[in-house]
Amino acid sequence: MSEPDVLDEVTPELVRRVEAALADDRAEDVRSLLAGLSATGQASILEQVAEAERDKLVGILKRDLDPETLIELDEEVLEDVLDQLDSKDIAAAARELETDDAVAILEELPEQERQEVLAELPAEERAEIESALAYPEDTAGRLMQRSLVKIPDRWTVGEVIDHCREATDLPDDVYDIFVVDPAGRLRGSVPLGRMLRTKRPVPILDIVDPDIPSVPASADQVEVAHLFRDKNLVSCPVVDKRGRLEGVIMVDDVVDVIDEEAEEDLLKMGGVGIDDMHAPPVRTARLRAVWLTVNLATAVLASFVIGQFEGAIEKIVALAVLMPIVASMGGNAGTQTVTVAVRALATGQLTAANALRFVAKEAAVGGLNGMIFALVMGAAVVAWYGDWRLGSVIGAAMICNLIAAALAGTLIPLGLRKFGVDPAVSSTVFLTTVTDVIGFLAFLGLATVFLL
Amino acid sequence: MSEPDVLDEVTPELVRRVEAALADDRAEDVRSLLAGLSATGQASILEQVAEAERDKLVGILKRDLDPETLIELDEEVLEDVLDQLDSKDIAAAARELETDDAVAILEELPEQERQEVLAELPAEERAEIESALAYPEDTAGRLMQRSLVKIPDRWTVGEVIDHCREATDLPDDVYDIFVVDPAGRLRGSVPLGRMLRTKRPVPILDIVDPDIPSVPASADQVEVAHLFRDKNLVSCPVVDKRGRLEGVIMVDDVVDVIDEEAEEDLLKMGGVGIDDMHAPPVRTARLRAVWLTVNLATAVLASFVIGQFEGAIEKIVALAVLMPIVASMGGNAGTQTVTVAVRALATGQLTAANALRFVAKEAAVGGLNGMIFALVMGAAVVAWYGDWRLGSVIGAAMICNLIAAALAGTLIPLGLRKFGVDPAVSSTVFLTTVTDVIGFLAFLGLATVFLL
Repeated sequence: MSEPDVLDEVTPELVRRVEAALADDRAEDVRSLLAGLSATGQASILEQVAEAERDKLVGILKRDLDPETLIELDEEVLEDVLDQLDSKDIAAAARELETDDAVAILEELPEQERQEVLAELPAEERAEIESALAYPEDTAGRLMQRSLVKIPDRWTVGEVIDHCREATDLPDDVYDIFVVDPAGRLRGSVPLGRMLRTKRPVPILDIVDPDIPSVPASADQVEVAHLFRDKNLVSCPVVDKRGRLEGVIMVDDVVDVIDEEAEEDLLKMGGVGIDDMHAPPVRTARLRAVWLTVNLATAVLASFVIGQFEGAIEKIVALAVLMPIVASMGGNAGTQTVTVAVRALATGQLTAANALRFVAKEAAVGGLNGMIFALVMGAAVVAWYGDWRLGSVIGAAMICNLIAAALAGTLIPLGLRKFGVDPAVSSTVFLTTVTDVIGFLAFLGLATVFLL
Repeated sequence: MSEPDVLDEVTPELVRRVEAALADDRAEDVRSLLAGLSATGQASILEQVAEAERDKLVGILKRDLDPETLIELDEEVLEDVLDQLDSKDIAAAARELETDDAVAILEELPEQERQEVLAELPAEERAEIESALAYPEDTAGRLMQRSLVKIPDRWTVGEVIDHCREATDLPDDVYDIFVVDPAGRLRGSVPLGRMLRTKRPVPILDIVDPDIPSVPASADQVEVAHLFRDKNLVSCPVVDKRGRLEGVIMVDDVVDVIDEEAEEDLLKMGGVGIDDMHAPPVRTARLRAVWLTVNLATAVLASFVIGQFEGAIEKIVALAVLMPIVASMGGNAGTQTVTVAVRALATGQLTAANALRFVAKEAAVGGLNGMIFALVMGAAVVAWYGDWRLGSVIGAAMICNLIAAALAGTLIPLGLRKFGVDPAVSSTVFLTTVTDVIGFLAFLGLATVFLL
C-alpha cells in the first residue's frame, strides 16, 4: 500500500536520472521525475545531488518546490537552497507552513533577507513569526505552533462541538482542545476522542484533564523532548510566566529533536560537527582540523613520554615494537567506558546518586579484562621473544592501563559534566591522553626498572 | 506547572533517601517516598539503586508498582525486576497495559514463565498477546496495538459519532478513525478533528484520506520509525497481505524506537552493547572482552609491522618516539570520516548515487589536512631534532596516512553495507587496522629508504 521508507521512493537510479536530466538541461524531464515524490523524497534528492546540480534543480523547481521539502533538509543544504530563492519565493513557502516550520526556515536567513521575507508576509503571520523569533534558538518558544483550539472554561461539550463545526480554519492535526479561564490561564485539556463520546449538555470542565504537563516558552527543546518521551505525549501546551496559554508543541516536531539529539552525541564523540556531511571540502577540513590539532597535542605529549625512555628502547628494541599494543588496548577499553558514561549522563541514568557505584563497577571491569589480556599478551610475548620478564612487564603494564582507562573513562565525563562542559565533545581526547601516557609510562617505566 | 524533566523529579537526594530507607527496611517510608512519582520517575529510581536494593524495592512495592513503570525500564533492569515478581503479579500488570506494551514485557520472560503469565490472563487478551508474539521481534506486528476505531465505509458522520458515543471502551488516545470495506480492507482514515467539524449526514467516505501510508505487520520497526519521521505521522495502520486492517502503531511507541536507533549506533561504534550500563561487572567484562580481543589482533598486526623495522629503530631511536604520532593522527582523522559515513548511511543520505562524490570529498579533506599537519609536524620535528630529513619523512608519512584514513573511512563502511554487515559495529576496528599499519609502514618505510 505504501513504501516503508524514503529509500524505496528515492532510488540511486532515480537520483542518477535526475542528475542526467539536469546535466542536459532537460527542465521538463526534471519536473516530471520529481512530480510524484513526497516532500521527504524531494529533500532526499536535493541532499544527494552535487551542489552545482542542486542549484540548477532549485532554479527549475522554484515555486513548484513543496514548502514541506525545505523543513526536511539538512541545515547546510537548506542554506544553499535558500540562497537560490528570492525573498518572494521564500515568503510564498513560509505562508503555506505552520508557524514553527516557517520559523525554522527564517532563522537560517541573514538578518536583512529575513526582514525582506517578513515584509512579504501578511501582518498576522508576520507578527506570529516575529514573536517566535524573539525566543532564543532551541527553546520551546521556537518549536511551538500558535494555531490551537482554545475554549472558555464555562462552555458545555455541545458549545465546543458547535464552535469546532463553525471554525473553518481548524487544522486537521488537532488532538486535544485546551480549556482556559477568563484570564487566559490554562486549566487543562480534553482529548478529542473523549469529547466525542460525551453528551452535549456536560460542562467541558467536567471532562478536562487538569494535571497535564506544560512547559514555559523558554524551556530547552531537549528537555521538552524528554518530557514527551517520558510521558508519551502527543502534544504539550506552552504557557507564559502567569500560566497563560501561548501555543502548543506537536509530537512530530519533537521527533526531529529526539532524532538529532542522539545523533549529535554520536557526531561529537567522533570529532565532527552536525553539518559535516554537506559542507564543502575546505570548510569540512577546517572544522575537523580543530579536533585534529587537539589530538596532535595529545600525541605529542605521549611521544614526549616515550622520549624519556630513549635509552631503554636503544637497549631493548622490542619495547618499541610492543609499546603501541599497551596504549591501544587502554584506548579501546577507555572508549567503551566513556561511551557508556556519556550516554548514561545524557539519558539521566548516571547521576550523583549512583556515580560512585558506576566508577567502582567500571574499575572492576577494567581490572578483570586487564588481568585476562595481561595473561594473553604476557604469554604471547614469552612465546614470541622467549623472555618471561618481558612478558611479565607487558602484563603488568596492561593491568595498570586498563584500570587507568576505567577510572579516566568514568571520572573525565563526570568531571566535565560537573563543570558544565558537554562530556560528548571532549571526553575522548582527555581519555586517550591518559591511556597513551599511562600506557607508555607503565610499560617503558617497568621495563627500565626490571629489565635493564 | 510541571517539571520539564524526570531529572527534576528524581533528584540524587531522593535516590539516596530511598536507598537509606531500604537499608533500614523502613518499608512505609519507601512507599511514601515513591508515592508521588510518575511511572518514569519510579523507573528512574529502580535504575539508579544498586541491584540488591532494587530487589528489596520491588519486594516492597509488588502490586503497588505502576505497570507503566515496567515499560520505561532498561532491558537489563526489567529482567531483574521481573525475576522478583511472580506470574500473578506480572499478569496483573499486563492486564492494565496496552497489548503492545504487555508484549514488550512478556517477550523478556523465559518461555515457561511466559506461558504461566498468559494462563493468568483473560482469554481475549491472551489471544491478542499471543498473536503479537507470533511476529518476529523488532517488527511492526510487535509494535502495534489492536484497540482502534474501525468503521464500515457505508456509514455517515452521524452514525460514526453515535458509535463513538456508545463505545464506552474507546481509548482516550484515538486521533484517527479507520474506514474499512466489507472485506475488512483498509480504505483510509479520518482525523477526529475533521469529523468533528463535518455535518452529520455527510457519508464518511466523502471526508476520508484514501492515500494514507500503511505498513505490513512484518515491516522492520526502524523502517516504520523512518516513515513516521518522514511523513510526520501520529498513527499508522498495519495491514495484512490482503490489505485488511490488523492494528495501529502509535507515535509514542515509535519515539522509543527512534531514540534507541541512534543510541545503538553510538554504543556500537564505542564497542559496547545496549545493556552494558546495567549488566553486572563480570557479564560486562565478558561482553567487552570480545571487542577488545578484535582490537588486540589489530594492535598485534601493527606491532608486527614495527617489528620489520627493528634495525632502523635501533639506529635512529627517534623513530620509536615519533611513530605513534603518525598512527594516532590517522586514527583520529579516520574516525571523523567513519562517523559521518555511518550516520549518513543510517539516515539514507549516503547512497550508491552519491558514494563516489562522498569518497572524493573525504579524500580531498584528508589531503588538505594531511598537508597542514605535515607542515606543522615536519616543522616541529626539525625544531626538535634539528634534522630536516626526519621532518620531511614524518610530513610525507602524515600525508599518506591521512589520505589512507579518508579512503578507509569511506570505503570500509560502504563495503560493509554492501555485504549486509552493520557498518556501525565493525567499521572502526578495520579503520584503525588500516591507519596503524599504513602509519607505521609509511613512516618507518620512508625512514629506512631516506635516512639509513
